[in-house]
Amino acid sequence: MFASDSLQSEMFGRHCARILKARYCSTPWSSSGHCWVPRDISAAVPLDPLLLVADEYAVLADRLQRTIVAELPKLAPNAELFFKMLVKERRFQPSVLLLMEKAMDVPTPTQASRHCADVSPIRIFSGQQCIPEIAEMSNIYNFVRHNMLDDADTRYQASFLNLFLGTKLSVLVGDFLLSKILVILASTKNSEVQSILSKVVEHLVMGEAMEITSSSEQLCSIAHYLEMVYYKKASLLANSCKAIAILAGKDEEITIMASNYGRYLGYAYHLMDDILDIAGISASSGNLSSDIASRMFGAPMLFAIEEFPELRRVVDCRFKNPSELEFGLECLRKSGGMQRTRELATKYAGLALEAIETFPRTNNNKDAEVSRQVLVELARKII
Amino acid sequence: MFASDSLQSEMFGRHCARILKARYCSTPWSSSGHCWVPRDISAAVPLDPLLLVADEYAVLADRLQRTIVAELPKLAPNAELFFKMLVKERRFQPSVLLLMEKAMDVPTPTQASRHCADVSPIRIFSGQQCIPEIAEMSNIYNFVRHNMLDDADTRYQASFLNLFLGTKLSVLVGDFLLSKILVILASTKNSEVQSILSKVVEHLVMGEAMEITSSSEQLCSIAHYLEMVYYKKASLLANSCKAIAILAGKDEEITIMASNYGRYLGYAYHLMDDILDIAGISASSGNLSSDIASRMFGAPMLFAIEEFPELRRVVDCRFKNPSELEFGLECLRKSGGMQRTRELATKYAGLALEAIETFPRTNNNKDAEVSRQVLVELARKII
Repeated sequence: MFASDSLQSEMFGRHCARILKARYCSTPWSSSGHCWVPRDISAAVPLDPLLLVADEYAVLADRLQRTIVAELPKLAPNAELFFKMLVKERRFQPSVLLLMEKAMDVPTPTQASRHCADVSPIRIFSGQQCIPEIAEMSNIYNFVRHNMLDDADTRYQASFLNLFLGTKLSVLVGDFLLSKILVILASTKNSEVQSILSKVVEHLVMGEAMEITSSSEQLCSIAHYLEMVYYKKASLLANSCKAIAILAGKDEEITIMASNYGRYLGYAYHLMDDILDIAGISASSGNLSSDIASRMFGAPMLFAIEEFPELRRVVDCRFKNPSELEFGLECLRKSGGMQRTRELATKYAGLALEAIETFPRTNNNKDAEVSRQVLVELARKII
Repeated sequence: MFASDSLQSEMFGRHCARILKARYCSTPWSSSGHCWVPRDISAAVPLDPLLLVADEYAVLADRLQRTIVAELPKLAPNAELFFKMLVKERRFQPSVLLLMEKAMDVPTPTQASRHCADVSPIRIFSGQQCIPEIAEMSNIYNFVRHNMLDDADTRYQASFLNLFLGTKLSVLVGDFLLSKILVILASTKNSEVQSILSKVVEHLVMGEAMEITSSSEQLCSIAHYLEMVYYKKASLLANSCKAIAILAGKDEEITIMASNYGRYLGYAYHLMDDILDIAGISASSGNLSSDIASRMFGAPMLFAIEEFPELRRVVDCRFKNPSELEFGLECLRKSGGMQRTRELATKYAGLALEAIETFPRTNNNKDAEVSRQVLVELARKII
């Protein structure tokens, strides 16, 4: 599976990327700048496709962490743990966008400026180069708000993040990120891209609003759930890929295909994540927490409810005790929930693959071609 | 005093505006469109200068309320009370900006489109016409966050707003407003204005961050307090006036003066508000609440601390009991806190007056000239 689950795996990823880079830099194509380009393109796609941009992602993430901590110094004592908590959520989307930028041959900042330690992202990045940064910020915002709002009104169970950061700081980190996205977007000077990317933030907030304001009936509907997944996850990839294509000067057909790739890959990734979440719970032998209730509430459970309507009661009560959790998992095992989720993820991954395969080959730019193949590989891995 | 304290006063203001409008519409200048223009300009400035734009403000506020409630239907049951709670905060800044637009002769939407009931602000307003809307949204954001963050971490005293809306909805209303500002800004298609207005939002969040993350030492410093007032209040008027001047095609000198007018009027208004807050508390005979502690914490008290350092202790503890409140008020009465605050407000109002008086007269546009005189009058009223 390509989604890394811990900082250790992330660090291992970067280590592997360095080894791969060292290997490929001895090929004839290595003279094309800082990019590592192999002799045989198909052999260049690493086992974890995101490794290709692991270095770029690490620099981006580090710089953003430093900016947040510098401007919100109260976060500093808990910063390391805070950023570890959200590492799983964060890597996938910005990495896909870094790959899309390479595949579209969008100029990126030099390694030198990316490694510059004392500048904020706003000063380095303008135009297209801001898109993976905005995705990273959106992911952190999503994580902070989801964790905060998930439990803020329950009387006996404060969310771990709230206990850890305090309500004030939790609220403030989210606001800080939205205000920085606004400043970065204002600096892009491309009104079409601004309009597209502003939708991403609008959708993130709409997604949270749906989660909070929907009726119990709506929350148990798979159609409603997929709409929420679009607002909270897939819109970010869809609209960001679209913006990258526009900035790269691609025609309308390619722009639509880029948007489709982002949208369907976003759905597929999230649905596979739902499956992994449930698998993790099965192995945790009924160790109840609000986090488990939240992870149970995904596509597999919603499909299972269609077969076992009595599940609604325990889902509505958020699996208050171990026996309810056991009942939920039992119904899930008997149902086709996991299988149907896998089929849906495969369908979406197929649509993503279809979209990316329409992209024209760029044989005169081997770096772009490798990135395109990695994007193909990402969709294939889900199928 | 020109700041209205209740919805009743607001409604009374609109009623007066209608009477004044009816009176002036019989003059020879009334043929200049929907604007009411008097025979003698100096006689046109009403007792409450904001009455001149009371109708425009009412339409703007109503439409925004409807948009918020339509997109966050969970707010609907408490919407009327919610918007009443924040009416005092809201009217001043958008009204000043509506006046500045008129004084700068910026084209505004027709009354017809302003009265259109079923459209969102985003669809009606683009370019310069969005600035008072953004101010209105920023004010609501400010109100929601200030009330939420002020008490969110105290164990025994939840803020009234949190109890009333619930933490989730409180957080969400703020996020919703930030995301809508982002969408509106993206639609303006003027990168200079976007860059200026994005600072307003950045400053609002920085102001909240300062309030939460500052040390007790910093929170008792008048210089630090004035910096916070800039971020939370004066920046909105300063940067919005600047943006209006740029959109009106004014030269650099006028643009700087417009920004200065907004900045100093913002300071002066806030300091006078601090004085009124304390006056209100004096008359409330020690009826303690978190709101009172918050209102005690303004410029008069910070000046008083310079004379009575022992006040620090009760300010740090946020006036936990009536005797501490009485002690605080007693020190304040003995100190020059109120007088020094008044002097500072007068100084800032003088600077605002100086700035607006440099604006060239627009005798060929009587409507603009009346608005300019009303802006002069606003600064004079404080002095």
